[in-house]
Amino acid sequence: MLTDLYKEIEKHVNWLSSIGLDPKGGTTRLLYDLAWIEAQNSLKNKFEETGLSASFDSVGNLFGKLEGSKYPKETIMTGSHVDTVVNGGALDGQFGIIASYLAIKMLKEQYGQPLRNLEVVAMAEEEGSRFPYAFWGSKNIFGLADKNDVLYAEDTKGILFKDAMNQAGFNFRDENEKIREDIKAFVEIHIEQGNVLEKTGKQVAVVNSIVGQKRYDITLKGQANHAGTTPMGFRHDTVYGMSKMISESIDQAKELGDPLVLTFGHIDVKPNTVNVVPGETFFTMDCRHTDGQVLGDFTKEMESLFRKIAKDLELEIDIDNWMDEKPVPMSEKIVKILEEACQEKSLNYTTMHSGAGHDSQIFAPQVPTAMLFVPSVGGISHNPAEATKTEDLVEGIKALIASLYKLAYEE
Amino acid sequence: MLTDLYKEIEKHVNWLSSIGLDPKGGTTRLLYDLAWIEAQNSLKNKFEETGLSASFDSVGNLFGKLEGSKYPKETIMTGSHVDTVVNGGALDGQFGIIASYLAIKMLKEQYGQPLRNLEVVAMAEEEGSRFPYAFWGSKNIFGLADKNDVLYAEDTKGILFKDAMNQAGFNFRDENEKIREDIKAFVEIHIEQGNVLEKTGKQVAVVNSIVGQKRYDITLKGQANHAGTTPMGFRHDTVYGMSKMISESIDQAKELGDPLVLTFGHIDVKPNTVNVVPGETFFTMDCRHTDGQVLGDFTKEMESLFRKIAKDLELEIDIDNWMDEKPVPMSEKIVKILEEACQEKSLNYTTMHSGAGHDSQIFAPQVPTAMLFVPSVGGISHNPAEATKTEDLVEGIKALIASLYKLAYEE
Repeated sequence: MLTDLYKEIEKHVNWLSSIGLDPKGGTTRLLYDLAWIEAQNSLKNKFEETGLSASFDSVGNLFGKLEGSKYPKETIMTGSHVDTVVNGGALDGQFGIIASYLAIKMLKEQYGQPLRNLEVVAMAEEEGSRFPYAFWGSKNIFGLADKNDVLYAEDTKGILFKDAMNQAGFNFRDENEKIREDIKAFVEIHIEQGNVLEKTGKQVAVVNSIVGQKRYDITLKGQANHAGTTPMGFRHDTVYGMSKMISESIDQAKELGDPLVLTFGHIDVKPNTVNVVPGETFFTMDCRHTDGQVLGDFTKEMESLFRKIAKDLELEIDIDNWMDEKPVPMSEKIVKILEEACQEKSLNYTTMHSGAGHDSQIFAPQVPTAMLFVPSVGGISHNPAEATKTEDLVEGIKALIASLYKLAYEE
Repeated sequence: MLTDLYKEIEKHVNWLSSIGLDPKGGTTRLLYDLAWIEAQNSLKNKFEETGLSASFDSVGNLFGKLEGSKYPKETIMTGSHVDTVVNGGALDGQFGIIASYLAIKMLKEQYGQPLRNLEVVAMAEEEGSRFPYAFWGSKNIFGLADKNDVLYAEDTKGILFKDAMNQAGFNFRDENEKIREDIKAFVEIHIEQGNVLEKTGKQVAVVNSIVGQKRYDITLKGQANHAGTTPMGFRHDTVYGMSKMISESIDQAKELGDPLVLTFGHIDVKPNTVNVVPGETFFTMDCRHTDGQVLGDFTKEMESLFRKIAKDLELEIDIDNWMDEKPVPMSEKIVKILEEACQEKSLNYTTMHSGAGHDSQIFAPQVPTAMLFVPSVGGISHNPAEATKTEDLVEGIKALIASLYKLAYEE
């Protein structure tokens, strides 16, 4: 079976990532575009060929179901999202669909009909890459998406969300439609998109929570001055202020330690000239932690620190906290089942949190949910260079198969 | 005389700065362009109308000479540059020409012929705003400009330096032409372009030196990583490195104190996205001091500091010191004469260094040279908002008149 799995994975990953191949590199498959339509229809055919009953919901989430013999009203769901970022890699989202499909196919071949329904899902959208809306797929499964939030949304070509959806053959969810109550567990396998597994030499991870994250825009205003003729004591240098804020807050973040992460990814300086003291500096702050209380306390402290530095240097400061997502714990019960599955199969695994967002954070508050990770080479993702060693993909699918067996085939 | 001077200054500053008025703001008058040709020819007419013998040298420096009665082989020169930056103010360079012209005119009216020649110069170019070459005017006076350095220089429209020069009616200096030996002193009056006079409440300054300056391009290379999935300990964050370098070096610069100035004016971060740890950061450093030894020692220490921080954070660092201009002391003798002139006229003056470069730094190593400054409102320059109160311009010209009297009319 192992050799087969190795080849099957490579074949399927190559196949799915080739739908929407971008001449500028990688795969670009955005919600409701032609590549997306082709991918979802091809997956539907594949599910049906394998004996799964396949169907779309109103917005275009694709489900492939293997009926349970004993508990037909209980479903164990597994899968991920079919959309990519622009010039995305071959694994983000799509590996989760391929892995789930292959796991169900192999379980069916080896053990026949499960006790509970086993269902693979290829979710319509997660990345927010075409329209300014993320998690469109998973949110619609639970009736959590408000159509007013996308009604006037346009893509970069000016195409309206609704028109793109209609042209792909889909429509808004009927608000009277009942929410599914059969989903008893959701398991999503995904690439890590970080370098923890690689650095620690592990092949699989059970994910026990998804971090909360807060994002800020920070603008400092001082005074643009001549770099030669303005003595240091007469300056209101916004780059000096920014550099103190960044270096001191990262020092404090490192002292507080994992799992806190703090990133200043974007900086714009005005006028950005070698011989002018910068009168204005804009920068962003992205802070994440698995504990909402710690995240809130730390960012509050940093806000105070920034205001103190600005006051000391006589700079104006504007702090805009435009994203505040709470941490999402995974189901303890499902985490334990996934860990046991890894132990029973003697996999080289660890348990960790996710620093990135995933469809599972929409599922987790609704149904018992947990995730599996496989390593990302160099931690690279959202990039054509995104890669995972096939032997690690194999170990990930082995973990998924063992987990789904426990959930769907055992009493 | 005072009321006249006040009106005369305003009239002449308005007149000269209107030649090359830019629809986008301020004055744009670049070497050899149409506004430049008009300005130099208009100044030539004005000099001649005032009874000065006016002439251009080969490259387009304009001289207006009032012959000396007793020492016709000794010239006291005064003036500044006629070119502006793009969207420049009404005073940088051109106020020095107006002030020198008015000073000679008034000295002539009041005292008649001087003992030594008095000569106003409207230098062709200082800013380096059209072609990548600065001090073209003053360097040519002393045969210090190498034509090979501009032979293939083009402006932003692709016009060759030589073609622009020829079309304006000028040509390269004949290499066999003798260097003038008659210039016994040079005095340049200029706006301060900083806020020292304004902050200290002075109306005039005698400038005793021009700072040396070193400029650097610094590039840090680390690793671009996902802001959520990469623990702090696994990062090679170039923005963190940069912020430590900038904050620590500015702290040290402030500790060392005036006249050291240190500026980080330009920052470019890659990929410059809120949720990616920046894998590459480019920034510039501009450092100035009146003492070459202190400047050299300080920048050397900062280089070591940057390399140490880069090593600690496991970042690659490239430091390119692309400008290294030595400090230029003014003539002690001329500085003393200017100070005496200010004292005798009971002017509200101080003595200071210049943090910016000026034509006087080309003159000073060749002939006894010193400068006068008038305040800049808000320290603003190279900007349409550049301004000096007219009463301060008056005080500056009074200092210049008194100085030129001492140099040209006294034995």
